[in-house]
Amino acid sequence: MPIVQFAPLSSLVQPALWHKLTDLKIDVLKLSDASVPISGSYAAGRSVKDRESGQEISLPCNITVGSESFDSDYSAPHGSVSVAGTLKNFNTIEEFKAADKTAIFNSEAQIVWDTILKTRDTTQLNRFLLITFADLKKYKYYYWFAFPAFVSKPAWEIHDRGWHSAEEELGVDALSAIHVQLTSQSTAFPYFLVRKEPSGGVSIAPVESYETFYASTASENQIIAFLDPSSDPSNPGWPLRNLLTYLRALYPESTSKLRILRWRDTEAPPSPNIPWKSQLGTLSVASTEPTIVDSSSPRPSAVGWEKNPQGKLGPRVADLAPMMDPTRLAAQAVDLNLKLMRWRILPALDLDRISSTRCLLLGAGTLGCYVARALMGWGVRTITFVDSGKVSFSNPVRQPLFEFADCLDGGKPKAECAAASLKKIFPGINATGHTLSIPMPGHPIPPNASSISQAKADVEKLESLIEEHDAVFLLMDSRESRWLPTVIGAAKGKIVLNAALGFDSYLVMRHGARVSSLSTGANGKPHQKLGCYYCNDIVAPADSLTDRTLDQMCTVTRPGIAPIAAATAVELLASLLQHPDRNHAPAPPPNTNASVEANEEEGLSSVLGLVPHQLRGFLGQFKTMPLVGAAYDRCTGCSEIVLQAYEKDGFPMLLQAFNDIKYLETLTGLDKLFEEGESAINDIDWHEEEDDF
Amino acid sequence: MPIVQFAPLSSLVQPALWHKLTDLKIDVLKLSDASVPISGSYAAGRSVKDRESGQEISLPCNITVGSESFDSDYSAPHGSVSVAGTLKNFNTIEEFKAADKTAIFNSEAQIVWDTILKTRDTTQLNRFLLITFADLKKYKYYYWFAFPAFVSKPAWEIHDRGWHSAEEELGVDALSAIHVQLTSQSTAFPYFLVRKEPSGGVSIAPVESYETFYASTASENQIIAFLDPSSDPSNPGWPLRNLLTYLRALYPESTSKLRILRWRDTEAPPSPNIPWKSQLGTLSVASTEPTIVDSSSPRPSAVGWEKNPQGKLGPRVADLAPMMDPTRLAAQAVDLNLKLMRWRILPALDLDRISSTRCLLLGAGTLGCYVARALMGWGVRTITFVDSGKVSFSNPVRQPLFEFADCLDGGKPKAECAAASLKKIFPGINATGHTLSIPMPGHPIPPNASSISQAKADVEKLESLIEEHDAVFLLMDSRESRWLPTVIGAAKGKIVLNAALGFDSYLVMRHGARVSSLSTGANGKPHQKLGCYYCNDIVAPADSLTDRTLDQMCTVTRPGIAPIAAATAVELLASLLQHPDRNHAPAPPPNTNASVEANEEEGLSSVLGLVPHQLRGFLGQFKTMPLVGAAYDRCTGCSEIVLQAYEKDGFPMLLQAFNDIKYLETLTGLDKLFEEGESAINDIDWHEEEDDF
Repeated sequence: MPIVQFAPLSSLVQPALWHKLTDLKIDVLKLSDASVPISGSYAAGRSVKDRESGQEISLPCNITVGSESFDSDYSAPHGSVSVAGTLKNFNTIEEFKAADKTAIFNSEAQIVWDTILKTRDTTQLNRFLLITFADLKKYKYYYWFAFPAFVSKPAWEIHDRGWHSAEEELGVDALSAIHVQLTSQSTAFPYFLVRKEPSGGVSIAPVESYETFYASTASENQIIAFLDPSSDPSNPGWPLRNLLTYLRALYPESTSKLRILRWRDTEAPPSPNIPWKSQLGTLSVASTEPTIVDSSSPRPSAVGWEKNPQGKLGPRVADLAPMMDPTRLAAQAVDLNLKLMRWRILPALDLDRISSTRCLLLGAGTLGCYVARALMGWGVRTITFVDSGKVSFSNPVRQPLFEFADCLDGGKPKAECAAASLKKIFPGINATGHTLSIPMPGHPIPPNASSISQAKADVEKLESLIEEHDAVFLLMDSRESRWLPTVIGAAKGKIVLNAALGFDSYLVMRHGARVSSLSTGANGKPHQKLGCYYCNDIVAPADSLTDRTLDQMCTVTRPGIAPIAAATAVELLASLLQHPDRNHAPAPPPNTNASVEANEEEGLSSVLGLVPHQLRGFLGQFKTMPLVGAAYDRCTGCSEIVLQAYEKDGFPMLLQAFNDIKYLETLTGLDKLFEEGESAINDIDWHEEEDDF
Repeated sequence: MPIVQFAPLSSLVQPALWHKLTDLKIDVLKLSDASVPISGSYAAGRSVKDRESGQEISLPCNITVGSESFDSDYSAPHGSVSVAGTLKNFNTIEEFKAADKTAIFNSEAQIVWDTILKTRDTTQLNRFLLITFADLKKYKYYYWFAFPAFVSKPAWEIHDRGWHSAEEELGVDALSAIHVQLTSQSTAFPYFLVRKEPSGGVSIAPVESYETFYASTASENQIIAFLDPSSDPSNPGWPLRNLLTYLRALYPESTSKLRILRWRDTEAPPSPNIPWKSQLGTLSVASTEPTIVDSSSPRPSAVGWEKNPQGKLGPRVADLAPMMDPTRLAAQAVDLNLKLMRWRILPALDLDRISSTRCLLLGAGTLGCYVARALMGWGVRTITFVDSGKVSFSNPVRQPLFEFADCLDGGKPKAECAAASLKKIFPGINATGHTLSIPMPGHPIPPNASSISQAKADVEKLESLIEEHDAVFLLMDSRESRWLPTVIGAAKGKIVLNAALGFDSYLVMRHGARVSSLSTGANGKPHQKLGCYYCNDIVAPADSLTDRTLDQMCTVTRPGIAPIAAATAVELLASLLQHPDRNHAPAPPPNTNASVEANEEEGLSSVLGLVPHQLRGFLGQFKTMPLVGAAYDRCTGCSEIVLQAYEKDGFPMLLQAFNDIKYLETLTGLDKLFEEGESAINDIDWHEEEDDF
């Protein structure tokens, strides 16, 4: 009698699986190469008729994996049976290649063998193994499936009739009865038992009830059935192998000769003229020494690594890059780079808190351009520029969002041009630009209706922009232009970051948030109110723009200062956003030599480290100096006197501040202080001290 | 008798003057608004014939200023006379507007008056004044000319015949004789005396010889002549005014009635049919009280501010931007921004030394892009990239020379793409990119002829690139790829700057230059040999690339780290180039609290400040730490053992280093050291200490 040959399973991977694996790797697995559960499914084997020859062509015995394969509540599509599996993803191609595949395979086969010995659950008889290496930067996936099947020794043989039509032998009524009973089940059976009843009908039952179901059934009325993924008339599908091993192991006395039904009629034939597809065959095995297995029985050897398209034992590669939308590729690539931070270095990093922060950049010059780039690097998705200028010929070499072409024909508006440039860099960004002049103290609004209504419109525009954003960057080129957004930002409780440049020095600071007397930080201590850009001033901001020489009009700086200050400001924001107190994060004292642990204990550290109040950098000595300055209760920018006057009176109050350089000094009492002389100034409680390095 | 009316002078400014003024302002004047000498010229007045009416139309009496006007050896064009003047350029438009124009004008008039009283030099009788404000960022020039002319009281009157043909009265022979005598002079006379000789001929002489030349000449034979820029038949040109004042002041007895020749025949008529253009007229002035002036005589009042095209007394504006080549505009704008540094802050800064430094950037990733931008900000004109990669989707948000479009179709080659991007930013740059893999120790070259010849070609390419540049930046993403350029750079005596990133930290360093035992620095002390990137290593660089997980392959860093490190590296180069010892500049000791003056005394400071050896930055604490490390005589990168082996054996030595990871350790003796155990390592003379901040 000929030996039974089995049609091997082949993997069918829907591309969605790779996308899911990418997410799993980036967000969950990270650097872990631990095994994770995965599910797939197979259905009854299908064949197609060749249009030329009229011959039936068998399709491969596919195990399909796809988008739901990592779901814990995976269920197979209708008519298919689910297959449990194990995924093992390696971190490097070298590890993938060097992996001990025999050991991995055997441990999967052991799971199946344990199932036979212990739970006897036939849904676990067809497990699969998938080992992978995901090159996430190139969207290339190296993978290799294995479908462990036990080797029967001696081999099964098939009786003379071979595989033949079940319809011819059992009749349409019996097959119909099986079909009806199967479809009444909530899930498909991979395997089932059929019993020809004395009445002439048929019954079915799970394989797990073998002993009871066949207790009083003659062996000629016993038919063992399985959902056969193979449509090859000569070769039953791979799942039969482990079933045979199962039966031989558990019921050796009654299973050396078996009638096997290859069930393929998930759908009954649509008309009486079309034959049923299922086949029957009688298999025998030479019964050597039939012993019931026990928990110590050795596992039979197993085979089942899938061959690659070249017909060799080796991995396959899925290259998804060519089929992906480039914009989506870019978005994923950018995300990936950020998420990698959490793999090894900072699992606690809350990237979404940074990327969801809407940032308003006041000034689209050297600082504005560099700040935008660093924000984009952090994955920030909403960046809005405000500037009143146009791109001039000296800009592109220092302002990294402009190029020569932007300077022609008088120059593009800087804010809009910078926003367009961000989109060219990363199409997924939400970037906009607004050409807007920010009214300033010391620059009186001409007393005519149109000038005043223009100033009012400008103020309202700025108010609504600040309202719509979470963080406001002050990146302008004059002191007084920062006053209005300082006031509005403080009143609205926004994060305000300030960067200002000298020739070879810079100041980067975060404005202190408004504090209520009751509020406390995560460390249980009361919030401290830190100062703003104006807290050190003893006069109100005034016109510093008129009458400037060329070197004062241009920001004359060492070219490296702006990228350093801009990146520092963005990193300060990132650290602040990671601190539990966010905008109220306490500033580390300037002279601290405290250890990382001590700072953490004091509640000074975010996941990213300390959150200083001010940083002054000096390129002449290549040094950076952290400073702390308390808020000043007569400050023209952030004191309650000013904020409450603004909140009470709105635009008329601001108009007074623009027009009358004495107004703010009178309002805050700075004028009296000034009159009282220098001695009074020395009483101000400054904590701004130089670090001693 | 009718009062004599004069045709005023008008300014004719060639655009080249404004370019010269720009250079003068940026390079010489800077913030100074001191008066500077300027020269112009005028020629005999010309008229043109109107084609329609056939009428003669007088052209304006132009004083022309142009490209040579600031030359100290200015000479007027042939046939023109030169006019000395004073330029006063203001720093701001406000100062220009607010200037005390009366005082400025009067001081110029006083110069003319002083000339009359003291030197009697008639070439100084027609001075002019030019006040300007140059808006160099917009190429707009605000200017106002004045041509001070004294007011005669009472006014001069002209006799009945008015201005009439000189040819009719004096005859062709006399005019020809004057013409011949004038053209025999080396320069044109603005004024001259004519004497009718008893013989019937004519003689001419300078006005300065009035007394001797006319000593025995009857007044009817005296003719006072001037080169007349006015071709208006009724109105002589402005220069006559100060001549009349001159003559009345110095020779009051003989000058109340004068025959005046308006000389316009710089060229004699080309044919006898064409009349001579010069005119004669007899002027009288009511002689009130003719007194000889002396040094205390009060200056007569003067007039002469030029009207603008609107016919009003007010400045004119020359807007050169529309007529300029945008590429040239960009080049000038970039230069301007840099040169402004020298106006107020750093007059001693040698910008050319920086801009002429040819920079080779090994690596066109995050660091390479930011380094290139900072170099461009310093005006560096030659930037060359080397990289073997292509632009991928994750690059543009962190690598500021790439955009989304560069990632499509598999990505552009990074080096070439970065170079093209620099040209888009600033067309004047000399930027190139080379796709090149740098061979590395620990990455053996496959032992076949084509691999070896490829490696040889790559090494030769790198050698010639390093040879052609002055500074080499190591900006790659692995340790071992820096080895080959470290060796070649040290052997060739190039400046080598190195930047490397951690997650939230960076290292920026300059490699120490090779030192001969005799060489000393500008401070008289022997050169110290500073370490290189490998001087701290106790094993040779080896393969760190294979078997890397994704987060190790990508440079996983806080996005702000790269711009900070890149800008720091460029500023370190700038400071180094300004130090008299350049690549041998001594490093400040790490724990110094020395004052700026003390550092200067020690020879540690460049114009831009200190030139540290290494800087390590930490974003977690927002601090920067200067370090110093001495060179190590067993260093695999820069020790004499290695450099001399390379110089002696060339490529075969390098090939050994690539292929055999033990070779460099054996060559340098590191292997023995390692065998001798840990104790030996502690003997290494490290000066790398932490600063105490």
